[in-house]
Amino acid sequence: MKICVLPGDGIGPEIMAEAVRVIQALDLKFELEEGLLGGAAVDATGDPYPEATRKLAREADAVLLGAVGGPKWDGLLREQRPERGLLGIRKDLGLFANLRPAILYPELANASTLKPEVVSGLDILIVRELTGDIYFGQPRGIENRDGERYGFNTMHYTESEIRRIGRVAFEAARKRNKRLCSVDKMNVLETTQLWRDVMTELAPEYPDVELTHMLVDNAAMQLVRAPKQFDVMVTGNMFGDILSDEASMLTGSIGMLPSASLDANNKGLYEPSHGSAPDIAGKGVANPLATILSAAMMLRYTFNNEAAAARVETAVKKVLAQGYRTGDIYEPGTTKVGTKQMGDAVLAAL
Amino acid sequence: MKICVLPGDGIGPEIMAEAVRVIQALDLKFELEEGLLGGAAVDATGDPYPEATRKLAREADAVLLGAVGGPKWDGLLREQRPERGLLGIRKDLGLFANLRPAILYPELANASTLKPEVVSGLDILIVRELTGDIYFGQPRGIENRDGERYGFNTMHYTESEIRRIGRVAFEAARKRNKRLCSVDKMNVLETTQLWRDVMTELAPEYPDVELTHMLVDNAAMQLVRAPKQFDVMVTGNMFGDILSDEASMLTGSIGMLPSASLDANNKGLYEPSHGSAPDIAGKGVANPLATILSAAMMLRYTFNNEAAAARVETAVKKVLAQGYRTGDIYEPGTTKVGTKQMGDAVLAAL
Ligand SMILES: CC(C)[C@H](C(=O)O)[C@@H](O)C(=O)O
Ligand SMILES: CC(C)[C@H](C(=O)O)[C@@H](O)C(=O)O
Repeated sequence: MKICVLPGDGIGPEIMAEAVRVIQALDLKFELEEGLLGGAAVDATGDPYPEATRKLAREADAVLLGAVGGPKWDGLLREQRPERGLLGIRKDLGLFANLRPAILYPELANASTLKPEVVSGLDILIVRELTGDIYFGQPRGIENRDGERYGFNTMHYTESEIRRIGRVAFEAARKRNKRLCSVDKMNVLETTQLWRDVMTELAPEYPDVELTHMLVDNAAMQLVRAPKQFDVMVTGNMFGDILSDEASMLTGSIGMLPSASLDANNKGLYEPSHGSAPDIAGKGVANPLATILSAAMMLRYTFNNEAAAARVETAVKKVLAQGYRTGDIYEPGTTKVGTKQMGDAVLAAL
Repeated sequence: MKICVLPGDGIGPEIMAEAVRVIQALDLKFELEEGLLGGAAVDATGDPYPEATRKLAREADAVLLGAVGGPKWDGLLREQRPERGLLGIRKDLGLFANLRPAILYPELANASTLKPEVVSGLDILIVRELTGDIYFGQPRGIENRDGERYGFNTMHYTESEIRRIGRVAFEAARKRNKRLCSVDKMNVLETTQLWRDVMTELAPEYPDVELTHMLVDNAAMQLVRAPKQFDVMVTGNMFGDILSDEASMLTGSIGMLPSASLDANNKGLYEPSHGSAPDIAGKGVANPLATILSAAMMLRYTFNNEAAAARVETAVKKVLAQGYRTGDIYEPGTTKVGTKQMGDAVLAAL
């Protein structure tokens, strides 16, 4: 059981160090191999997804990623930017199913900017298609046409791409509250008309799941108005990027939210939903819990070890109950700790 | 001074009746001519934007629209759906600049699902490009390829399209708090890389306005986390659709929010930000204030009559202060009124 560990940039190495300690403490005979991705890889090799990392990632059963990017690399050409590494590994490994839970931990309810009654108990799973859509569509570019610059991109989906992510979403809903909301913009975009059609065609195979459809603009509103109406949401790569970030922010504690990106055989890349936070990098204050919870998702989805996953999640809940908080989730009356102390607390709770 | 009045569908006719009464009470020698758009037009002519309406709208100085759409027309073919009428009139009249204020009225602060300290005093203007982007891009469609259905759409912008909406946004920021945030997804989409480049090139012409850039996923988060950081936001048609709806919902009172869609000469179409609310249509309970405030925007932008616009807006604030509320914004301790009574109250306050 091989895990490819990619600490990445900014706070990546710090938070990853704690997740690795947690994994090792489980004593599950994992083989961990570290590689470079993003800005760190650009600095070392000139390529945000270098060949050595590609090899490691392909051979591993799972990839655990910290975060990539930062202002240091903003001036680089498109192909060299850190996020190209992320897009590259997603596409290369065929990680089409991105699962992003937005959960409000009762202990952190105050962190939300929404009223407690609107978000208490919030538990949404966003299933985002991750290897298609306008992210990877050809043709694309910036050209000169009729004497001026012209920028263009192509949104597209095939019915098999939609069916594949649809099945992941229906299966996920089946294991939860059996409600699936598919988000599209069928009143304007043919691509998402096809999306709605294919989701509708799948529904009879999952009679225990209630399928509804919502337009993306309305979904962006409903997440603010009444987010608890949702159980599982499924949507394309572009809308999923926007809605999953909006949904995570409803909790006010994005430093707590993990994510999984899976291929057809449950090989996966696991990473926190937050970014590389260059402003606090190297200070030892970043919240490692989203990365630790990403490791728990890895245990569940790739290694099929529900017991170990639950053990890690329970440990995280325990440290919250004990009052340990990193700066991002701190409030008076709790105990402020740094990245390493938070890792210590989770290890102790294990 | 000709106004083309398009009541549209659902609650459209009811709320429009009140806006028309307000306009007439101003005694400004407007010529009002009524036409059909959306579902009402489909029912009467088979076309959601019939030739007669096209003629009326082209000849008028401004168009005042209620709302279009409803489940009644959901089964129709793409080209006959009510929203094609809306897209058609926008494109036909060249209404490229959509201005959507998201304002929290102090009297309605409780209606927001966000904590009072996060939204009190909220006053954002979203400037959305309205005639380009993936909405109108060719090629598009659903085809059979390699034995399966394939849906595709084209996102595109030319630099002159971006410059044109950029200027509108910079000018608007200049008249407000002089901060403009341009939203894109430049790390993935070339079209929006061009968007960012052109906005950056415009900035030196507006040295009094501070230009910042934000990725769309972050913008969706920041609107939830700290919406008061924004003054004016400018973005493309697709992202603008999503973000402007998210922003309006932050106020909790979308029944209060007007919008303007302008061409290059300030000819405009004015409509409430909310939809046609078929569930309450015909009951006389809909909130006419967003439509009345849309008429105020019309007085300001198309007819350059700031005094009359301010008079209408002051009257609306007065009825709120007097405690009149339609069902959507009602709370205990206020006076619940219907559509017509709300119109009466505004007329009295004028
Ligand atoms: C960094 C960027 C390319 C990426 C995306 O848009 O997919 C990020 O926003 C995410 O959601 O993981
Ligand atoms: C009805 C629909 C086509 C329209 C849009 O997407 O532009 C609406 O959502 C809007 O924002 O005015």
